[in-house]
Amino acid sequence: MHIDPAVYVRNTIRSVPDWPRPGVTFRDITPVLQDPRSFRVLIDLFVYRYMRQRLDLVAGVDARGFILGSVLAYELNLGFVPVRKKGKLPFRTVAEEYSLEYGNATVEMHTDSVRPGQRVLLIDDLIATGGTMVAASKLLQRLGANVVEAAAIIDLPELGGSQALRETGLDIYTVCSFSESAP
Amino acid sequence: MHIDPAVYVRNTIRSVPDWPRPGVTFRDITPVLQDPRSFRVLIDLFVYRYMRQRLDLVAGVDARGFILGSVLAYELNLGFVPVRKKGKLPFRTVAEEYSLEYGNATVEMHTDSVRPGQRVLLIDDLIATGGTMVAASKLLQRLGANVVEAAAIIDLPELGGSQALRETGLDIYTVCSFSESAP
Repeated sequence: MHIDPAVYVRNTIRSVPDWPRPGVTFRDITPVLQDPRSFRVLIDLFVYRYMRQRLDLVAGVDARGFILGSVLAYELNLGFVPVRKKGKLPFRTVAEEYSLEYGNATVEMHTDSVRPGQRVLLIDDLIATGGTMVAASKLLQRLGANVVEAAAIIDLPELGGSQALRETGLDIYTVCSFSESAP
Repeated sequence: MHIDPAVYVRNTIRSVPDWPRPGVTFRDITPVLQDPRSFRVLIDLFVYRYMRQRLDLVAGVDARGFILGSVLAYELNLGFVPVRKKGKLPFRTVAEEYSLEYGNATVEMHTDSVRPGQRVLLIDDLIATGGTMVAASKLLQRLGANVVEAAAIIDLPELGGSQALRETGLDIYTVCSFSESAP
């Protein structure tokens, strides 16, 4: 029996209605992670995509981006660098603020986490409005990195994030997409 | 040249003085993650330890425990389950509160993240007072899991966490330890 890996992953994602607030459907990847088969299929989609590319580092976004990013770094024999929420990194940092629906948030990286010219794959679990990914890619570029691609499991195209990311010149890859309202 | 993997990892950890507050030395694992060689040596220490054990799941503690836990789950062909800070999981959860130096914190797991009798490896980056690990292992036990071992990269034995964990009946493994005051 042939399995389309992206369809298998998409079908294993759980849709939780009215979370975090009424009218919003949350796409929950924990069932994909929890089953060794779907977890392997998920990771291998990314491994196969990047195994022939020249990369130096994987940068994963706090916190769900760590789950995907660290496995990829190990499998591809690269280093792993965390893009963290404000106040979590102990050494010298660079910071980038971005807008959320309510208020602002800030992401930080260690100044010595990337060397100029390094080829970096940026990873998170989801692209919604794209605010976090745009901020993270700005941080990486300020440190001199070449952001080869920004990748995630899920795209929510109606929120415009993947389009906004493309318009900044980034290449984008997502495994699957969901409509905001549809099940 | 022979490399003792635990010594190599320990020597790659960065000690940041006076963080998060004066008099405290923070042990920063980001240099270990960032270099593909030390990252591989670190992960393989855990892979070799657990590759012959019968395990079903790796539970990683939010957020640095995700980095180690997800790679281990993939390498050992297990599922990965996140133990999250309060308010991050969208489905039905169980919660456990624990004390911090100032105030309390709460960890949560999805009620369907573990089935009774499953053999679970619990992973975080660091054991300090052990509060988070004790709370996480209580959650796992409430869900019927058999916590085979609680593992971390770093032990800070002077803070008493690893001892407290052992006294709850848990087996503990850490790669290396640091004295609170020493460099």
